[in-house]
Amino acid sequence: MAALVYFDHNATTPIDPAVREAMLPWLSERFGNASSRHEYGRQAHAAIAEARARVAAAIGAHATEIIFTGGGSEADNLFIKGAAARMAAGALAVSAIEHPAVIEAAEQLARRGWRLLRLAVDGEGRVDEAAYRQTLSAGPRLVSVMLANNETGVLQDVAALAGMARARGAVFHTDGVQALGRTAIDFRSLNVHALSLSAHKIGGPQGVGALVLDKRVEIEPLIAGGGQERGLRSGTENVAAIVGFGVACELAAGRLAEESSRLCALRQRLEEGLRAIGATLFGGGAERLPNTVCFAIPGFDGETLVGHMDRAGFALGSGSACSSAHPEPSHVLKAMGVSDASARGALRVSLGAGNTREEIDAFLTALRSTTMELKRWTALAV
Amino acid sequence: MAALVYFDHNATTPIDPAVREAMLPWLSERFGNASSRHEYGRQAHAAIAEARARVAAAIGAHATEIIFTGGGSEADNLFIKGAAARMAAGALAVSAIEHPAVIEAAEQLARRGWRLLRLAVDGEGRVDEAAYRQTLSAGPRLVSVMLANNETGVLQDVAALAGMARARGAVFHTDGVQALGRTAIDFRSLNVHALSLSAHKIGGPQGVGALVLDKRVEIEPLIAGGGQERGLRSGTENVAAIVGFGVACELAAGRLAEESSRLCALRQRLEEGLRAIGATLFGGGAERLPNTVCFAIPGFDGETLVGHMDRAGFALGSGSACSSAHPEPSHVLKAMGVSDASARGALRVSLGAGNTREEIDAFLTALRSTTMELKRWTALAV
Repeated sequence: MAALVYFDHNATTPIDPAVREAMLPWLSERFGNASSRHEYGRQAHAAIAEARARVAAAIGAHATEIIFTGGGSEADNLFIKGAAARMAAGALAVSAIEHPAVIEAAEQLARRGWRLLRLAVDGEGRVDEAAYRQTLSAGPRLVSVMLANNETGVLQDVAALAGMARARGAVFHTDGVQALGRTAIDFRSLNVHALSLSAHKIGGPQGVGALVLDKRVEIEPLIAGGGQERGLRSGTENVAAIVGFGVACELAAGRLAEESSRLCALRQRLEEGLRAIGATLFGGGAERLPNTVCFAIPGFDGETLVGHMDRAGFALGSGSACSSAHPEPSHVLKAMGVSDASARGALRVSLGAGNTREEIDAFLTALRSTTMELKRWTALAV
Repeated sequence: MAALVYFDHNATTPIDPAVREAMLPWLSERFGNASSRHEYGRQAHAAIAEARARVAAAIGAHATEIIFTGGGSEADNLFIKGAAARMAAGALAVSAIEHPAVIEAAEQLARRGWRLLRLAVDGEGRVDEAAYRQTLSAGPRLVSVMLANNETGVLQDVAALAGMARARGAVFHTDGVQALGRTAIDFRSLNVHALSLSAHKIGGPQGVGALVLDKRVEIEPLIAGGGQERGLRSGTENVAAIVGFGVACELAAGRLAEESSRLCALRQRLEEGLRAIGATLFGGGAERLPNTVCFAIPGFDGETLVGHMDRAGFALGSGSACSSAHPEPSHVLKAMGVSDASARGALRVSLGAGNTREEIDAFLTALRSTTMELKRWTALAV
């Protein structure tokens, strides 16, 4: 397993060694419940406060705006359903390329009397501005558009979209799970009411995320109970994971400029090589995360290639890699007007810490020989 | 910090070294997203399946009945609100001594048109059978009564209560968070539709729990999205924590008989000592968890004593220790008919792995001298 080159950082990332080091005491002798009023509890409580400040600093928010959750999907659900619970049912608008956590939460609301409007995207996966303006004129109370897409890496101009929605009186949420640590995020200049984050996409642990929330927006908790996180997310805090998230945010923010230009260079090298072997790049004309390339090689099935590349020593994604329960062609590519046949060919390389130029070159060589071999077999079979 | 004697196992427990060992690879080189279709993903997926089987085995359930969550509070909320979402609004009944995660979830339903019935308990904290029968005659669709109370350790005859509720057509849930690993749990003979569990009360990590669910009961997910956990709990799985939970369950089940009689003996020694210094025991006449003693020393404030004992080197709980947001006297003791003044004196010792007879003796000595000293100061101040 150690020999496998990991090109699936949008699915999850290895934990940064410094993050793991910071977590270990909280999985060992510092095991307190942060609500306990003795030394163990106080230490846990202080560690959470420090992590909260670190997460806030990484995105230009105030520590009191951070609500720790069990992950990005929970943050999405918490805001969308939580804000809706404090409003009369009306319309809500989400982009057609959102993560399933946003789409499914919106569909739950649709089953409870909300009218769900889907924001169309153009061929590159960017929210279509004319369609957006038209949707806003229908008066949605809630709007959710992600910062960066998990499959294509395509970025949205969230600040502009949020500004237009605010002008109409809507509450605006953005899923920043894939953007965190890969592009600069400033909560204030984004102009959104709420932002979802996740730790395990930036070298932090699985099982922790955050909702960054403008406190002027009232939400109902998804998990009610002991009153942790200002009553908005009850349950004993996962101290080790929260500590790890804080450190991961600090590291990611510190490395962002350098790492982003390093990954951009790798991505460019990868894309040149892919084009040379006839690949189609999805969202290739849009501004994207520096680490993500979504492509297809005409005539080849994505799942099949992922399997072959896995055996050749490269771990990459097909479709959104978010759930094995959805083997259908990607809803993101469909929304971009990609045909089902072409979408079934989709592969995703998502780069991260540790990936090198040599790995890119080795991958291109392996991909070229795999496709040639598959072609030979197909020719023999005919 | 290392010198502190830990008597607060109902708040959280130290992670068992074997659990931590099992978790570490998943915080290191085995970091995959369980939904990914490459080697990293397959390993994570297999590890979750193994953990699921371990949790199921510890409570006599089938692996397919286990839904991993981010903790016990999430499991409680998932069932109560998730089952209610698939029913027409009606009545629901929860005991007056439930954990806030059950009570607050029920109160959220009450704000959405449900009628909330509170089941009274007797002076020892047991659900009053006559009152229970009467409440059932009001036809609640959902009933929730915990297995063991977090503050007093008092056990309920859940199998009998569930049987009566089932006979009336109600769906029955029990919060087993404090009972797991401290008393035998058999999902089948409990006769419940759903059972909430948590890892961090049994030597497992914080941030993971489970809802054990009879699949004949339909529930709506609290966290919708990628479709993990049979569509009932979306979000990238916290593999390390789930693996740790599985190992903790296996260890707890294996040690239950021996550990339970060891803790019973310690508890008896503690209670004798407490009675000798004039303490009142809450729920002392009821069948209880072997590890929990809730008591007050007349004339002393619980918070004050917790602080003094903390400085003397003993970590124990006051009130439910579930949230620093609730400094009011315990709702559990109030429901048992304890006066506010007496409830404000409540302290909780909850024993666990590693606690010794010597620690009990040292605690009793320290408590005796602390109370004597406080009395002296009070006398001087008058």
